[in-house]
Amino acid sequence: SNSVRIAVLPGDGIGTEVTEATLAVLDPLARRHGIGLSTEALPAGAFHYQATGDAFPEASFRAAESADAILLGAMGWPGIRQADGTEIAPQLDLRFRLGLYAGVRPVRAIPGVPVALADPRAATIDFVLVRESTEGLFHSRGKGLVTQDLAEETLRITRATTEKLSRFSFRLAERRAARLGRAGRVTLVDKANVFRAFAFMRAVFDEVATEFPGVESGHHYVDAMALDLVRRPWAYDVLPTENMFGDILSDLAAGLVGGMGFSPSADIGDEHAVFQPAHGTAPDIAGQGIANPAAMLLSASMMLDWLASRGAGQGFADAAAELDAAVDAAFAGGLRTTDIGGGDGTAAVVRAVQAQLGG
Amino acid sequence: SNSVRIAVLPGDGIGTEVTEATLAVLDPLARRHGIGLSTEALPAGAFHYQATGDAFPEASFRAAESADAILLGAMGWPGIRQADGTEIAPQLDLRFRLGLYAGVRPVRAIPGVPVALADPRAATIDFVLVRESTEGLFHSRGKGLVTQDLAEETLRITRATTEKLSRFSFRLAERRAARLGRAGRVTLVDKANVFRAFAFMRAVFDEVATEFPGVESGHHYVDAMALDLVRRPWAYDVLPTENMFGDILSDLAAGLVGGMGFSPSADIGDEHAVFQPAHGTAPDIAGQGIANPAAMLLSASMMLDWLASRGAGQGFADAAAELDAAVDAAFAGGLRTTDIGGGDGTAAVVRAVQAQLGG
Ligand SMILES: CC(C)[C@H](C(=O)O)[C@@H](O)C(=O)O
Ligand SMILES: CC(C)[C@H](C(=O)O)[C@@H](O)C(=O)O
Repeated sequence: SNSVRIAVLPGDGIGTEVTEATLAVLDPLARRHGIGLSTEALPAGAFHYQATGDAFPEASFRAAESADAILLGAMGWPGIRQADGTEIAPQLDLRFRLGLYAGVRPVRAIPGVPVALADPRAATIDFVLVRESTEGLFHSRGKGLVTQDLAEETLRITRATTEKLSRFSFRLAERRAARLGRAGRVTLVDKANVFRAFAFMRAVFDEVATEFPGVESGHHYVDAMALDLVRRPWAYDVLPTENMFGDILSDLAAGLVGGMGFSPSADIGDEHAVFQPAHGTAPDIAGQGIANPAAMLLSASMMLDWLASRGAGQGFADAAAELDAAVDAAFAGGLRTTDIGGGDGTAAVVRAVQAQLGG
Repeated sequence: SNSVRIAVLPGDGIGTEVTEATLAVLDPLARRHGIGLSTEALPAGAFHYQATGDAFPEASFRAAESADAILLGAMGWPGIRQADGTEIAPQLDLRFRLGLYAGVRPVRAIPGVPVALADPRAATIDFVLVRESTEGLFHSRGKGLVTQDLAEETLRITRATTEKLSRFSFRLAERRAARLGRAGRVTLVDKANVFRAFAFMRAVFDEVATEFPGVESGHHYVDAMALDLVRRPWAYDVLPTENMFGDILSDLAAGLVGGMGFSPSADIGDEHAVFQPAHGTAPDIAGQGIANPAAMLLSASMMLDWLASRGAGQGFADAAAELDAAVDAAFAGGLRTTDIGGGDGTAAVVRAVQAQLGG
C-alpha cells in the first residue's frame, strides 16, 4: 500500500521541537509524492514519568508496535531518575521489546557543515556504524547487581543476534556498494584480543562473511578503531559492533561531521523500526527555538527509505532521496544552525529545506 | 636512596626497538644527574610464548615485582593466540597481579607535532585520562562464559578500587593545578544513566570528591565524552574512568595529538608501577628502524617523576623534567618521525633528544 501509519513519540526537551519541524517538512513532501503518511503523536518520556509515574504507557507502546514505523524525537531529562539512579529511557525499551538489533548510524560529511578534522579528506567521510542494540552490555540494563562493596553488570553476545547483525551489515554494504559504485567493506569492531565473548562474536561474524563473497570483510579492535576514526575515518564503510562500543563510537563519529545535530539514526529489527536523531533532549537549549532538526529530518528520510524497502512503494524511496538532497542543498547553500556557530534556528531550517523541496 | 633498579620488559615487535632507544637516552641522562639507574632486561611476550609456551615466566614476574619500577616496551602479536582465541598480553597480568589500578595516560599537544583537529585551540590540549586498570570489564578477562549459543563477560566495579582511583585522580588534579597555576578539575566518565554499576561508581566518586573541596568535580557520560574529545578536548583536565572506557577513550585521545607514537602511559598502584608507551607492537613496521620512541621516552620520564615522588631524590624529578623538555624541543626544532609523515627513524629521534640534553 502507499499509505502508512507513523507512530510519533516526540518525547522531551528539543525532542518535541525537532519533531514538529520534521512533521512540517514531511507533510507537503508526502503530498507531492502522492504517498499517504498518517501520524499519531503518543505520550512517553521523562516528563510523562514525572507527571504520571509511567515513562512509557502501555497504550503508547501498543500503538507504536502496531504502526508501520516509529518516529522518535528524544527522551530523558537529567533531573528525572528512577529509583536505582538510572535515567528514564523508553527508547531503550523499544529497542529491547521490539527486537531492534541493528542501530544504524550513518556518518557523512555534509557539504557546508564544518568537519572537525584538519585533513582535507574529512570532507569525504561516509561510513555507517551498525550498533547492535538489544544485547551486549545493555543486556544488563536494569539487572545490575549492587551491594555495599561492589556492583556488576553482564555483557551478553548471542550467536543468533550476531548472525542477524552481521547479515544486516553485509546487506547494507551491498546496497551502498551498488549506490556508490565501489566494493563494499564490512569491519567488525570488537575486543577479541582480550575477551572470549568477542572472540566468539568474531567467529560468528566470520561464518556469516562467507555468505557474502562479494563484500570485503575484516575486524578491528575497538580501541584501534577509536584511533582510526580520528586518523582516517574516510577509510571505512560499514562498521557493526557491540551495543556499548557502538554507543561510544557513534558519538565520536558524530563529532567528526558537525555533531549530534547532523546525526540521524535508525533502530531496525525484522518487523519494526524506530527512527530518531542520535542527539538527546538538550536541556541547555530546550525551549529556545534553536534546536537543529537536520538529524531528525535525515532520520525521517531513513524511515521513508526503509518503508520503501518494506514494499510501501517507490514514492517513498523518491521522497527519501529528495529529502536528503534538500537538507544537503540547504546547508551547501549557506544555512548555518547555531550548533555550528550560525544564527539559524529551527524554523529557519524548516523554511530552507522546504524551499529546496520547491514549496 | 638515589639508586634504583628498573626491570625492563622490551617485549615484542617495536617494543624492543623503542626500549633500546629509551635506554640509550636514559643512560647518559642518569649519569649527568648523578642518579643510579640499574636496568635488567627480562623475557616475556608473544614470541617468548611461541618459543617456550610461557608468555610471562614466573622468574620475570618476580624480578619485575622486586624492582623499584618496571619499564615495558610492548607485547603481543596478531598471529600468536591462546587456546581461547585471545592474545598474549602479560602487561594485563602485571596490572592485575600488582594491583596497578591507575592507568595514567597524559594527552598533550607537543609543539611541532601536528594535531588532528582543525580548531586552533587543539594546540592547547592538555588533559590526563586515568583508566582504572584492574577491574571494570577487564575483571572478566580469561573468565568469560562461552557456550554454543552465547557468550558472557562480567563488568565489576568495587567501592575500594573506585575510592582509590578517585583519590588518585583528585591528587593528580591538585599537582597539575599547582604546576599549571589554575584550578584542578576532575570529571568522572561513566554511563550512570543506564547502568546501576555506574550509578554506584558515581556515588562513590562523589563521596571521595568531598575530601577535595579545592578541586572541581563533575561527571560526563562516556558517549558524550567521546563526542567532546572531538569537539572540545581542551576543556578537560583529569578524567578517571572504567577500564574498557579508558582503553577506548585513550586511543581516541592519542589520535588527537599525533597518535600512539606520542602517547606515554603509566600503570600505577600503591606499591608498584609499570611505565610503557600506549602503542602496541606494530607488526607492520617492526624491524625497520622507523618506530617512534617518543611515547616510550615520555613514559620513562613519568617513571623518573614517580620514583622521585617515592623518595628516590630530586635528581629524578629534575631528570624527568629535562627529558620531557628535550623531547618537546626536538620536535619543536623540526624532528619529524615517519608516523607523522616525516623521514626520521628511531635513531634520529635518539640523536635529536640526546642533542637537546646536551650530549
Ligand atoms: C540516552 C541513552 C540511554 C542512549 C543510549 O545509551 O543508547 C543514547 O546515548 C543513544 O545513543 O541512543
Ligand atoms: C594490548 C591490549 C591488551 C591493551 C589493553 O586492552 O589494555 C592495550 O590496548 C592497552 O591499552 O594497554
